[in-house]
Amino acid sequence: MSEPNESTRPFGQRLRTALDTYGPLCVGIDPHEALLRAWGLDASADGAREFGLRTVEAASGRVGIVKPQVAFFERYGSAGFAALEDVMAAARAADLLVIADAKRGDIGTTMEGYAAAWLQPGSPLESDAVTLSPYLGTDSLHAALSLALQHDKGAFVLAATSNPEASVVQKAADADGESVAERVAHDVAARNIGAPGSLGSIGLVVGATVDRRSFGLNDIVLAGTPILAPGFGAQGAQPADLAGLFGYVASQVVASESRSILTGGAAGTAALAARIDERASLYRGQR
Amino acid sequence: MSEPNESTRPFGQRLRTALDTYGPLCVGIDPHEALLRAWGLDASADGAREFGLRTVEAASGRVGIVKPQVAFFERYGSAGFAALEDVMAAARAADLLVIADAKRGDIGTTMEGYAAAWLQPGSPLESDAVTLSPYLGTDSLHAALSLALQHDKGAFVLAATSNPEASVVQKAADADGESVAERVAHDVAARNIGAPGSLGSIGLVVGATVDRRSFGLNDIVLAGTPILAPGFGAQGAQPADLAGLFGYVASQVVASESRSILTGGAAGTAALAARIDERASLYRGQR
Repeated sequence: MSEPNESTRPFGQRLRTALDTYGPLCVGIDPHEALLRAWGLDASADGAREFGLRTVEAASGRVGIVKPQVAFFERYGSAGFAALEDVMAAARAADLLVIADAKRGDIGTTMEGYAAAWLQPGSPLESDAVTLSPYLGTDSLHAALSLALQHDKGAFVLAATSNPEASVVQKAADADGESVAERVAHDVAARNIGAPGSLGSIGLVVGATVDRRSFGLNDIVLAGTPILAPGFGAQGAQPADLAGLFGYVASQVVASESRSILTGGAAGTAALAARIDERASLYRGQR
Repeated sequence: MSEPNESTRPFGQRLRTALDTYGPLCVGIDPHEALLRAWGLDASADGAREFGLRTVEAASGRVGIVKPQVAFFERYGSAGFAALEDVMAAARAADLLVIADAKRGDIGTTMEGYAAAWLQPGSPLESDAVTLSPYLGTDSLHAALSLALQHDKGAFVLAATSNPEASVVQKAADADGESVAERVAHDVAARNIGAPGSLGSIGLVVGATVDRRSFGLNDIVLAGTPILAPGFGAQGAQPADLAGLFGYVASQVVASESRSILTGGAAGTAALAARIDERASLYRGQR
């Protein structure tokens, strides 16, 4: 069997395998304080670790991808990062692809530091892919994008997000009328040229509930680019909406749900697993 | 004596005191691998801790502000964050204002997580101010900006940076021709309305070598807003350029130098202190 996180295959191919095997659902690992309490856990690094390990256990074999939200670990400082390291290691050992939702972005040697943290094999925070923020320009992320390709890792660059205050940045345009989001998408597409298989290793973050065409993100610019789409579940989009929302590029979508699934963990890991099964099958039923 | 990081005064006032007492120089704490080696330290979390503690010792009483670059600690994972916690605690104990250069940016409860990490009193990563990235819109940073004001902390939001690839985002414009950088500056200025004293607590990052007017950042939009200006020293701008570059808002500038100072540490902490004294006096001589 071809294992999704067998590290000798490009991330895009491993992602393709994960999507084909399990469907598009990605389980967010968001140990928000309210969820920790609902699960009977302390709002602490230890609580976040237990929350993450239970989620990994419930997700294993039911979905192909998990997405830990770094902020909810970072709030506990170094102890929180130690918890995150344990959770990511457990997830990768369970053959789950791990997308670290860190939204990092900087330039030059500083960007190299972030790249080494999240994408260098053997790093304590090693993940399969990391989310990046391009306020300094997509090309400022070069150190991470090139390290990703070098080590069969991936990255997802923020393009168009669903929060209403984002449009002042993401819909702003250059003199030719190209929006920031479209420019980011073009820059990312250029990184995927020549990638083997049907899916590149450098992706975009596009909110599920976003009218992506109003950001200039048509199907052509998205061809072959993995799309991480938060906003499914509690945030409004439903599995049945996937094909309608993403059309020709729907097969490239990683549909991320967090709260809609994680609230199920209050009743225990078996209940959480059942919730994941239920949600995952709704997406698979759309194909 | 009025201590800059006496926490019962707004960050903007504490920053004003620091600038008036020591001048604009801010010492970057960038334990880049090449610098660690030059200092005879391991490229490890322990090396980064020792590097940071020596820099704090050398900076104490010579400048008012230090800026640890989070990426160079993050690359060592949780152990790196433990080192950063020690360095930031030592700096704050030495009455240095600490600007954590983290460039975080997210939305909603996730942004709350980052805000709690860096700005909540008692957090292991507590700093005096944190840098933020507004790709999701300045208002997406609300949780951090409001928590900062609530606890007499500060924030510096990326506006116009000196890397050439940044202009595709930061100079993009809305239908009225307002650039992204200018919009960010306006949003930040709105947060400082009614701030006591001459300086608000929410600032901007504006590269020293940037032609800021080409980004729409004139003196009026910057009035009363602290400006964190990387790019002095090795990156090209010199102390004598400060007044010419920043004109009427020069007194609001935090001039950050890293490599130009830190290379001095290879010859020991006393040599590093002498380098800091030398650079700091060059800025003070311009006033």
